Amino acid sequence: MDPVAPVVAALAVLLLAGKFGGEIATRIGQPAVLGELLVGIVLGNLSFGGVAPFQALATNETIEVLAGIGALILLFGVGVESTVAQMLKVGATSLFVAVLGVIVPFALGWGVGAWLLPDASPYLHAFLGATLCATSIGITARVLQDVGASRSPEARIILGAAVIDDVLGLVILGTVAGAIGAAAQGLPFSVISVAKTTGLAAAFLVGALVIGTTTAPRLFAAASLLHVRGVLVTVSLSLCFLFAWASSLMGLAPIIGAFAAGLVLEEVHFKDFVDRGERSLGELLRPISELLVPVFFVLMGLRTDLGAFATPGALGLAAALIVVAIVGKQVCALGVIVPGVNRLAVGIGMIPRGEVGLIFANVGAGLTLDGAPVIGPSTFSAVVAMVVVTTMITPAALKWSLARGTRGKAAIQQSGDA
Amino acid sequence: MDPVAPVVAALAVLLLAGKFGGEIATRIGQPAVLGELLVGIVLGNLSFGGVAPFQALATNETIEVLAGIGALILLFGVGVESTVAQMLKVGATSLFVAVLGVIVPFALGWGVGAWLLPDASPYLHAFLGATLCATSIGITARVLQDVGASRSPEARIILGAAVIDDVLGLVILGTVAGAIGAAAQGLPFSVISVAKTTGLAAAFLVGALVIGTTTAPRLFAAASLLHVRGVLVTVSLSLCFLFAWASSLMGLAPIIGAFAAGLVLEEVHFKDFVDRGERSLGELLRPISELLVPVFFVLMGLRTDLGAFATPGALGLAAALIVVAIVGKQVCALGVIVPGVNRLAVGIGMIPRGEVGLIFANVGAGLTLDGAPVIGPSTFSAVVAMVVVTTMITPAALKWSLARGTRGKAAIQQSGDA
Repeated sequence: MDPVAPVVAALAVLLLAGKFGGEIATRIGQPAVLGELLVGIVLGNLSFGGVAPFQALATNETIEVLAGIGALILLFGVGVESTVAQMLKVGATSLFVAVLGVIVPFALGWGVGAWLLPDASPYLHAFLGATLCATSIGITARVLQDVGASRSPEARIILGAAVIDDVLGLVILGTVAGAIGAAAQGLPFSVISVAKTTGLAAAFLVGALVIGTTTAPRLFAAASLLHVRGVLVTVSLSLCFLFAWASSLMGLAPIIGAFAAGLVLEEVHFKDFVDRGERSLGELLRPISELLVPVFFVLMGLRTDLGAFATPGALGLAAALIVVAIVGKQVCALGVIVPGVNRLAVGIGMIPRGEVGLIFANVGAGLTLDGAPVIGPSTFSAVVAMVVVTTMITPAALKWSLARGTRGKAAIQQSGDA
Repeated sequence: MDPVAPVVAALAVLLLAGKFGGEIATRIGQPAVLGELLVGIVLGNLSFGGVAPFQALATNETIEVLAGIGALILLFGVGVESTVAQMLKVGATSLFVAVLGVIVPFALGWGVGAWLLPDASPYLHAFLGATLCATSIGITARVLQDVGASRSPEARIILGAAVIDDVLGLVILGTVAGAIGAAAQGLPFSVISVAKTTGLAAAFLVGALVIGTTTAPRLFAAASLLHVRGVLVTVSLSLCFLFAWASSLMGLAPIIGAFAAGLVLEEVHFKDFVDRGERSLGELLRPISELLVPVFFVLMGLRTDLGAFATPGALGLAAALIVVAIVGKQVCALGVIVPGVNRLAVGIGMIPRGEVGLIFANVGAGLTLDGAPVIGPSTFSAVVAMVVVTTMITPAALKWSLARGTRGKAAIQQSGDA
């Protein structure tokens, strides 16, 4: 059979299931993304006499890459809707929000580990703390887009903080993982490697934004001289892909590069294209998003094994982790120093751990110390439960908080009018 | 490193290189697709001190699948521009054209093999004939689109004949490969397996078109009732993907299913969506095509090893195969029974072997008889050369023949007005 055939069959199943779930969610007033996640969880946990027909979709490598490209396109699109100038305006707030949102959950997660698993190694406690740090920007970005609030100040604070969070979270993950690796080999803790990770991350983001903002206008002015069709979408997506690749080279998540690429692109750069009757970049990206973004969310649902909740001890640990994951990020609201911003929405927007939490837990499951994995099966299920619950409660809670705050209402209206 | 990072880096290289090649081709009055192919050949054969930096792109499995999806989207888009009723109008002509275009090249290829390689097994001669049968629909479809003639009668005859050709070519390939497999095991030739392949192919195409045309109006009427965003593009692409998968299940190339899916979809089915201000399917497909279709053509170029031409004896065999490949398909013009059609354009449009010829040659290289591959390295290079030359001469020749025939000019004008 042609290798393309099973992949497109899987894509069709994911797309149709996602639309079905999205429709139900939309009908009951929830964001479509929640329906896509839930339909994925249902499909992933369907089993007929021991046969789970949709499990294979969750482990197909090509589908995984397509979902990953979907996450890049989503973050790129969100970035395109903001400008660097707007991000700098909320930059100090985002930084405070992010730092609080990393320190507090890390400490709380460590504490929960020390309290409920007192016999485990302190490295496990530190690792639990690390899984609570990073904010999954994808869920929040989609909800903000679904409710039409992706240009509001809350959106910029949350997205800016989530980017900084990812960087800080990855630094903590790298530090803890590096310390475990060193301990496994009997080596001492290395301050130099920590400093290197941090320095690279900061240098990449600053460099990408500076180089991007200075070269983008000239790049698109040059591109607009080409006669061939489809230049705008090709050049923009290539920029997104190259930034994503570069951020991965620096040891960061590719979505950070994609978001940075989106930030440096502004509608004014595409004026030449739009003036001659072509569609704007936002419109060109929409069909590509419709093809790839739902794949990411349905796949995240598919990978959620509800059976993990049945592991002994997992429920108690899961409950404690869920509580500190939610409470820990509410401290973020204290970091909001801009007046008139819906603080509750900012705190809630930081809750979801999504794919980042899962990636962290996966890294922990792969590390061994004294012959056993640092994150064992029952701890892993508890982390998965925390990720699922924080991811699932966010859409409804964020939508509610945005509608509740008068500032939020104004923001939605303003963005709807724009 | 994140598995998405190398894939998107490769995508960015392929997309930017493709645009660059396409722009040069456009500037010198050639179709963009020729530039995409040539830039691929240049990149694939660049080597610095024994290191060929872009070779890895040609063998990346995910890129291969993305290119394959690009081919599906291209054929689907071409199918969407035609209707089943229009295809039936030229159906008899397409059938005559296809049958002539399979029998004559098959016989000529067999003859060239028997003449130039008299000591080789008759199975090799038959295999050379088989590689000359199938028409690569992709190149011709792109050229027809590039010159704005994809709704002309010539286009429908060529595309209809190419579809039938693929079916007939695959039947011949299956027959020859089956006979070689049986001979290798000492088994007799099986008429039943040949009849089964033919029957399945015919049943699939008729079934897909009948089921598709009767259910598509109801499917889209139901889909238009959904409230969630992006229904039109999701449902249409899912239909394309499911048909492609189904045709692969039947042992046919997935592109045949994608083309059939496009044929059953007509603009009238999307009236409800367009009436409420959404873009038409053709417009929604364009950005997705811009992302995926060039990947297919640049990749085809990348896979062309110019070094193969240096193999002893390959040049003579290559020259003979090229001549019969071109001459053999010109007989197709005799099959045109509709008056007023540009026969020269039909014959030229059938010339390219592209990916189908390469797939056939690959199958031959994988089959062994008496301990040696049926298609050895030097025969393989000759087939590759035939594929490259037939693929490369078609865009310019087809464009020239369409502009030359008055009927072709009228067709271009008519399609431009539509």
